[in-house]
Amino acid sequence: MIPFETAFTIVLENTHDFGTVSLKLEDSPGRILAEDIFADRDFPPFDRATRDGIAINAAGLEQGNTSFAIQGIVAAGSTPVPLENETSCVEIMTGAMVPENADTVVMYEHLEIKDKKAVLQKPVQPGQNIHKIGSDQGKGDKVLGKGTKIHAAEIGVLASVGKTGVLVRELPKTAIIATGNELVAPSETPKPHQVRTSNSYTLSAALKKEGIASVLLHFPDDWEHIQEQLGQALQHYDVLLLSGGVSKGKYDFLPEVLEKLGVTKLFHKVQQRPGKPFWFGKHHEANTTVFAFPGNPGSTFASYHVYFLPWLSKSLGITIQPPKVYLEEAFSNEIALTRFIRAFAYLKEGQLYANIIHGNGSGDLTSLTQANGFLVIGPEKEHTIGDLVPFIPTQNIV
Amino acid sequence: MIPFETAFTIVLENTHDFGTVSLKLEDSPGRILAEDIFADRDFPPFDRATRDGIAINAAGLEQGNTSFAIQGIVAAGSTPVPLENETSCVEIMTGAMVPENADTVVMYEHLEIKDKKAVLQKPVQPGQNIHKIGSDQGKGDKVLGKGTKIHAAEIGVLASVGKTGVLVRELPKTAIIATGNELVAPSETPKPHQVRTSNSYTLSAALKKEGIASVLLHFPDDWEHIQEQLGQALQHYDVLLLSGGVSKGKYDFLPEVLEKLGVTKLFHKVQQRPGKPFWFGKHHEANTTVFAFPGNPGSTFASYHVYFLPWLSKSLGITIQPPKVYLEEAFSNEIALTRFIRAFAYLKEGQLYANIIHGNGSGDLTSLTQANGFLVIGPEKEHTIGDLVPFIPTQNIV
Repeated sequence: MIPFETAFTIVLENTHDFGTVSLKLEDSPGRILAEDIFADRDFPPFDRATRDGIAINAAGLEQGNTSFAIQGIVAAGSTPVPLENETSCVEIMTGAMVPENADTVVMYEHLEIKDKKAVLQKPVQPGQNIHKIGSDQGKGDKVLGKGTKIHAAEIGVLASVGKTGVLVRELPKTAIIATGNELVAPSETPKPHQVRTSNSYTLSAALKKEGIASVLLHFPDDWEHIQEQLGQALQHYDVLLLSGGVSKGKYDFLPEVLEKLGVTKLFHKVQQRPGKPFWFGKHHEANTTVFAFPGNPGSTFASYHVYFLPWLSKSLGITIQPPKVYLEEAFSNEIALTRFIRAFAYLKEGQLYANIIHGNGSGDLTSLTQANGFLVIGPEKEHTIGDLVPFIPTQNIV
Repeated sequence: MIPFETAFTIVLENTHDFGTVSLKLEDSPGRILAEDIFADRDFPPFDRATRDGIAINAAGLEQGNTSFAIQGIVAAGSTPVPLENETSCVEIMTGAMVPENADTVVMYEHLEIKDKKAVLQKPVQPGQNIHKIGSDQGKGDKVLGKGTKIHAAEIGVLASVGKTGVLVRELPKTAIIATGNELVAPSETPKPHQVRTSNSYTLSAALKKEGIASVLLHFPDDWEHIQEQLGQALQHYDVLLLSGGVSKGKYDFLPEVLEKLGVTKLFHKVQQRPGKPFWFGKHHEANTTVFAFPGNPGSTFASYHVYFLPWLSKSLGITIQPPKVYLEEAFSNEIALTRFIRAFAYLKEGQLYANIIHGNGSGDLTSLTQANGFLVIGPEKEHTIGDLVPFIPTQNIV
């Protein structure tokens, strides 16, 4: 049995590069860029009017001109004709290209227009209301870097530089494997000694949030069957998330089967609650990582967030740092295990607080729905109200 | 022109019920429950062993028994035979049903087993290591309430009570409509006076995060065309998100067309930057809400997060309260408009701070990618370092 910190370090030392894949722009939100993105033209691509009004040449202002003959109009999306001289103007719309010879835009609100002339009503600053060509980015500038997470704003940048296909980091092919003869499908009515599978669906939903479509498998407690199916799964997937079958029971032969199939055990059992019997290993030839979580819903759920998500993020090149929260209640951990305590964190006046959710042990699924994360409390650690404690979110808090 | 607070209030007064829909369990993560969920049996459904070891009757302990004859074994998923008497035991695995007449489980670590007998090595607490039937929930108890957002943990609860079909709040049928002759598709090489459409892709990615699949349309600046297409869109969708065509330009006839098509204008122009020309209205017969944002990328992006997301949340029965953050830099708003300032918020030691992103005005797309939200600064408001300021996140911060 190893301390939590050691287990966590081992997991993060065994991350995995899943390669890259090219996706359509529309399918790339949430993914990690695997290429640098450059501006294919200046941004803006031309001197761009930022107001509706008239375009003039500021030299006319110096000569004292306040009235300008309207020679035409330029809309966004049109090619303007050049400005004729310093006493003429072109009506111009927001987003349109400023005509040649013009360098200043005066908005309608500051003009009086009559007899095909525009007359200034307010002082004008030469060069005003023009978003200058290349002032945001020059052609060839890097606009997004490799390793950037693609949110909505990045999608806008990618669209604007014409990237309809985007190279992103590939996600792991993932199988979720439930073990145990007591499990039946959610659609079935369980017999008195049976329960419905829930962990696999929980994990699948959690993975979906990360953009990972997973495959759900169920192995009964049968050595031959498990050995055969697990052997195939090790070849097909990048990562296996198992739940159940790793504690001291007579039918908990997963660790043995895994080792027999060539998976190197990196550790088994961690000084933590929940999740003590957690088994972690790697099949080096198949390059498959195995997270074998204990079967209790609370154990699986905590272990996924404590270990798997940081492993996934680091594998994709992202560092996540668990936040710290102010405890709203004293908590004294009397045992020599690191504890993951269900809690509800919330922001108030710029500060993050957490209330402890008092549930019924690691088998209690519904108390998990009242929490939005786990406090991490060290072995035999005593905390008083107001202490800052690491918190592992299971939902978005802010 | 109305103040920001008035505009925001009007938007929230015009939310919309999109009805409900029944989804498969696997498709329900991220949605809002539209039914209460009850336990269909006790949880746990039987007295459940929480350790691997032996099941005994505590009455034997009172009689001074420390050695128990092993009469058999019960695995998870099996029906146990009753315990014979107070000097016998049944080997039992975690998750298994405790046999009739047994009431206490002793884990292997506290036993010595030889000659088909289990001998106690440590003191035993009567009733220990049993998760009692119904101790989490009794049959018929409400386990999840209407209005709950379905996260991964809720999926586990739904699976465990056999809800393979879940009634959730329906999402709005949404069309994103770009206007402007200057726009070409991202796949095209724009002519010098053209730009690629970006807002529609940004909005579509943002909606995708909310689980909403949107339809993208582009209308050129042609009155007849817009009137016809917009008329159809008003009948087909619950909400239209338009960008462009609402300011004072000669081709900005969207407001006029919308009113002609029977959309009631609820406001046009707000005392804010960016996004001053924002137009908001509702077609009462078709029950369609129209958000017509200004076309600048920064304006559209801010307006979506400032107005549309709270409107969507309230329509789905959820209240979101923007967090407050500590300013890392003084900011003085010298104009009589509410300002949405691009900023990057981050958590440090339990507190949320924000740095201002200094960009190049509302047309600058790349500075949006450096921000993760907008500070809301009131008209002519002066802020010093350390002030608590409302912040509208555009990404998940914690």
